[in-house]
Amino acid sequence: MKTRRLGYDGKGQARLKSGADAESTYAAMKGQPSILEGFCVFEREVSIIAARGADGSFAAFDLAENQHAHGILARTRVPARVGRETEASAQSIARKLGDHLDYVGVFAIEFFLMPDGRLVANEMAPRVHNSGHWTSDACICGQFEQHIRAVAGWPLGATARVCDAEMINLIGADADQWARHASEPNARVHLYGKRDAPPGRKMGHVTRLKPRC
Amino acid sequence: MKTRRLGYDGKGQARLKSGADAESTYAAMKGQPSILEGFCVFEREVSIIAARGADGSFAAFDLAENQHAHGILARTRVPARVGRETEASAQSIARKLGDHLDYVGVFAIEFFLMPDGRLVANEMAPRVHNSGHWTSDACICGQFEQHIRAVAGWPLGATARVCDAEMINLIGADADQWARHASEPNARVHLYGKRDAPPGRKMGHVTRLKPRC
Repeated sequence: MKTRRLGYDGKGQARLKSGADAESTYAAMKGQPSILEGFCVFEREVSIIAARGADGSFAAFDLAENQHAHGILARTRVPARVGRETEASAQSIARKLGDHLDYVGVFAIEFFLMPDGRLVANEMAPRVHNSGHWTSDACICGQFEQHIRAVAGWPLGATARVCDAEMINLIGADADQWARHASEPNARVHLYGKRDAPPGRKMGHVTRLKPRC
Repeated sequence: MKTRRLGYDGKGQARLKSGADAESTYAAMKGQPSILEGFCVFEREVSIIAARGADGSFAAFDLAENQHAHGILARTRVPARVGRETEASAQSIARKLGDHLDYVGVFAIEFFLMPDGRLVANEMAPRVHNSGHWTSDACICGQFEQHIRAVAGWPLGATARVCDAEMINLIGADADQWARHASEPNARVHLYGKRDAPPGRKMGHVTRLKPRC
């Protein structure tokens, strides 16, 4: 059960073991308008970050592979370990969705890759996305610049990737390890300048690049 | 003849054809303390951007090759078309100079590569440098972050280059071409937000990256 509004990073979610739990869970979530989703037994989690310009132009970054822990994105790696068809399928879905919504800007779709090869869309985020942070370090034009280009009517930037990358989130006390990450030879450290670091709060991220890959 | 202070981009410089011109030139430059430099017939202009930490640590970026026009840097390309010995020699000179000055931060040395293979130092800039702008787009850690790391006592960042690069300055009216550059597939456009664009003023730069080189 997920609240329809303001849910993120596992917040606004509850797990139901059977239909009999629905009412009590709904009450515990203060009766907020919610949706029920089924469970998926998936092979991998992947996401695509794409952009659509006001003129209908479209550009997508390479598919990224994600690992979540405790309902929060922990790690993104690119390239995702998927075949070309999966990559093409994700791009095609993103393009159709962007066109259908007449959307302008950067957006993300999270998918489950199922054992039979199907992609099942899990969430769509109408904005830049945590699983796209690697783009700013590893691509010609990152997702933030891409969004500004799209909404400002500039031509969309090149989504070409100059190297393989891995992004890890610094959550809560993870950020205390900044000095260790800052001395990793191929890491770019990003700290968000948040004052308090309660458990589960995203405090920054580290992108590890693999030069000349 | 170059003024000792506040000279840059060809400003504060005058060309003397013979020693007889010295006095009149000096007067025309309002008697500012100046230095005289000889002419060099060189093969190439190259520069090195390096950093030294407070603990004596040292890191240099790959040697870059520069083209000037009208006394102003027009274009930087990396790698420079020089041999390994030249690269090593530039690094060694930079390291010695940094140690000797007990310098902390990023600095640049411009050299002339002479026909006999010698490097003749032309200028040293105790700061980030125009010919190092490509580092922010093509290296794990760019020169600006590197400077902050050095002066803040962080470990120096990795100077590894992820791809070949070319940087062109947008000087004066060049900046009017921003839209054309923004649609180049492998270009990163940087505009400095300066309101007026008189001839000779640096208004921005474009870095062209060559992915997966």
